[in-house]
Amino acid sequence: MGESVLTVGSATTVEPGFVHVDGVLHCDAIPAPVIAEAAGTPTYVYSAGLIRQQYRRLDAAFARVPHRIHYSVKANSNLAVLRLLQAEGAGVDIVSGGELYRAHEAGFTGGDVVFSGVGKRARELHEALAAGVLFVNVESEGELLLLDQVARERGVIAPVALRVNPEVAVDNPHEYIRTGEKGHKFGIPFDDVPRVARETRDLPNLKLVGLDMHIGSQISSWEPYDAALARLVALLVRVRADGAQDIRYLDVGGGLAVTYDEEAPADVSRFAAGVIEATRGLDVTLVLEPGRFLVAESGILLTEVLFRKRSGGKEYVITDAGMNDLLRPSHYEAFHRIDAVKPTGERVVADVVGPVCESGDFLALDRDTDDAPPGALLAVRTTGAYGFSMASNYNSRPRPAEVLVDGDRFAIVTERERYEDLVRQERASLDWRVA
Amino acid sequence: MGESVLTVGSATTVEPGFVHVDGVLHCDAIPAPVIAEAAGTPTYVYSAGLIRQQYRRLDAAFARVPHRIHYSVKANSNLAVLRLLQAEGAGVDIVSGGELYRAHEAGFTGGDVVFSGVGKRARELHEALAAGVLFVNVESEGELLLLDQVARERGVIAPVALRVNPEVAVDNPHEYIRTGEKGHKFGIPFDDVPRVARETRDLPNLKLVGLDMHIGSQISSWEPYDAALARLVALLVRVRADGAQDIRYLDVGGGLAVTYDEEAPADVSRFAAGVIEATRGLDVTLVLEPGRFLVAESGILLTEVLFRKRSGGKEYVITDAGMNDLLRPSHYEAFHRIDAVKPTGERVVADVVGPVCESGDFLALDRDTDDAPPGALLAVRTTGAYGFSMASNYNSRPRPAEVLVDGDRFAIVTERERYEDLVRQERASLDWRVA
Repeated sequence: MGESVLTVGSATTVEPGFVHVDGVLHCDAIPAPVIAEAAGTPTYVYSAGLIRQQYRRLDAAFARVPHRIHYSVKANSNLAVLRLLQAEGAGVDIVSGGELYRAHEAGFTGGDVVFSGVGKRARELHEALAAGVLFVNVESEGELLLLDQVARERGVIAPVALRVNPEVAVDNPHEYIRTGEKGHKFGIPFDDVPRVARETRDLPNLKLVGLDMHIGSQISSWEPYDAALARLVALLVRVRADGAQDIRYLDVGGGLAVTYDEEAPADVSRFAAGVIEATRGLDVTLVLEPGRFLVAESGILLTEVLFRKRSGGKEYVITDAGMNDLLRPSHYEAFHRIDAVKPTGERVVADVVGPVCESGDFLALDRDTDDAPPGALLAVRTTGAYGFSMASNYNSRPRPAEVLVDGDRFAIVTERERYEDLVRQERASLDWRVA
Repeated sequence: MGESVLTVGSATTVEPGFVHVDGVLHCDAIPAPVIAEAAGTPTYVYSAGLIRQQYRRLDAAFARVPHRIHYSVKANSNLAVLRLLQAEGAGVDIVSGGELYRAHEAGFTGGDVVFSGVGKRARELHEALAAGVLFVNVESEGELLLLDQVARERGVIAPVALRVNPEVAVDNPHEYIRTGEKGHKFGIPFDDVPRVARETRDLPNLKLVGLDMHIGSQISSWEPYDAALARLVALLVRVRADGAQDIRYLDVGGGLAVTYDEEAPADVSRFAAGVIEATRGLDVTLVLEPGRFLVAESGILLTEVLFRKRSGGKEYVITDAGMNDLLRPSHYEAFHRIDAVKPTGERVVADVVGPVCESGDFLALDRDTDDAPPGALLAVRTTGAYGFSMASNYNSRPRPAEVLVDGDRFAIVTERERYEDLVRQERASLDWRVA
């Protein structure tokens, strides 16, 4: 039978990536049509090599200072991806009990885990303390009190980092992925932090071990990040002067940009140099929480053209992948490149749309794209992050398969759902109760 | 053990609906806290009586003409809801093989089914013809040719209705739910229909039995609908004059509005009178495809307040329901009323937000709402349609439970997912292959 991805590194020296070889798109050494044949469509395909490459770039950039890279699981929570990053030495940043469960399944221990999120439940905090997480990023005073109570019930001291809202304006592309401005739900208001830090130290079952910030995703310029980091550092100095001597971790978040269209790729060296300089002499371990940066460009969504159609002066390319499979174009107006697996050489300007019954079901609008006929395969690029993890069964569509490619071999890591899976939680026979 | 909803009607004469009795929100005769205690939160709760009431209103309004009501399954595909409507005499309008599977599970026969959708796959057409569906709403010439081929392979004649794009401008509130304008992916361009109708009749394995239109959802004025219907009727007359003598069905779509905020409820009598008048003497069976109208107002999402917090001059109510449970506020900027299950009498203007880690995770923004403390229950209203059916596991959050209330009794019809369910499709051991 099979072997785990854990036990085997890249089997060959194939350069990882998505490139056309002899007119056919490959993922590493594997032709995309071979994957479509084995797994069907739509299917997410990830390059293990690209994920490792990104991880190692980031890790190397911070090599000269104490640091930990905690992968933000929500970007892509597939167990094979998690195992791959675990083997690289990563920790994880989780936001729910479900992600803690996944982390455990993938081989992470409690000490590898940072628990973030604005709405943690008592049950989830119990699970996190039972696991022995590295620390909990606390986002409100209410959560602080709840965590103290849960720690008391468990007879442990809970390690806490306070998530600070640095209250800087940022300029990443969609309002939904900005998280560190005034008037966002995340974090503790900047000016409240010294008081909340004292409160944390006064609570008998808590220990203040860190400060944390995350200003959002897909950051496109460094000025807001640098400003936020400077504020965080100033806060650390002040809170320590106030007596908080146990702070060992400075969690500087994630947000490194990836290339969806023409964006410049994140300058990892510039990022690392800035953070290292800003935190010089602080005697902290830096905690990084990259998500999108590690996995986005490593993934494609492989889909088949079902129909072509012309209506109202427009060309339509109708694919078997819809908004239930990939929500980003519709939800965030996100741009994703679409490459023909076997380019025809002909171009067309078309809406590339899915089979879901609403006008919001599109992958691309008014796109200059390959004139792909029915039956042709397309690759929707840069879908390794917030692709499968946001998939749903809308229109009673089974969720897609996921395939991991590693050099010259590939494996189906997630089976496509079947119709039976759609109704798994529903009861055929009802157990009526009265009030 | 339990009994099916199929076999039992409403057990009492309780007036169905969501009302506060002695300061506590009830669904029919059941206090919401009793449901939260039994099923946990977040949980969708549906009133069987309200669904029946809507169905019967619509059915009665068309009683004097031949008509069929085909419930649009995508609005809420829960099996208990489907069984309930099946018992009322409804048919279904489906858009995928998964919805066909659900319809069968709920007791519908093939003849109860109309198959719509812009991106049907060959496999799905096979399944539909094997089931003996009433007709297939064909949306493109490519689909017509595919259906003819599938029918030939199966040795049957496939009943076809052509979905017409009436190309009228409509004014429903969100562009994503408008579907009958020029430049939308849906339907066959109006002027192409006579030619495509001839093509249908010329294809040996197809029989043209209907014309169909659907101009969108949540229609707020009748002028566009009336205009589209007049165009559809003119087309029917023309296509029949051209020799299409087998047309028996005129599918006039759905789109009846429901009340989310202050909208006037759909005037069902006006709708029916208009359709009946416009189609007088045509010798057709009308086919109606209501979705939202039948189920939206029958549902609430029951959620618990986890934390309260003040930041950046704003109040936040943090709930245990997030955008993965209810996507509509974030995705469509949809308004949903939020009622406290036990109102405190105090009000506050707040953002009601979920636990998911992005700023787009909200249920309501700047809402004048009950000043509900942590532990309080809230009901997000009018969530019976496009609520659970769009839910996902984003942030590795198990999907909510669903409860059906019928008068003085209730049943959990969908079990809340557990952590184990999140990884059900993933392989622990990988079966590596080479190209």
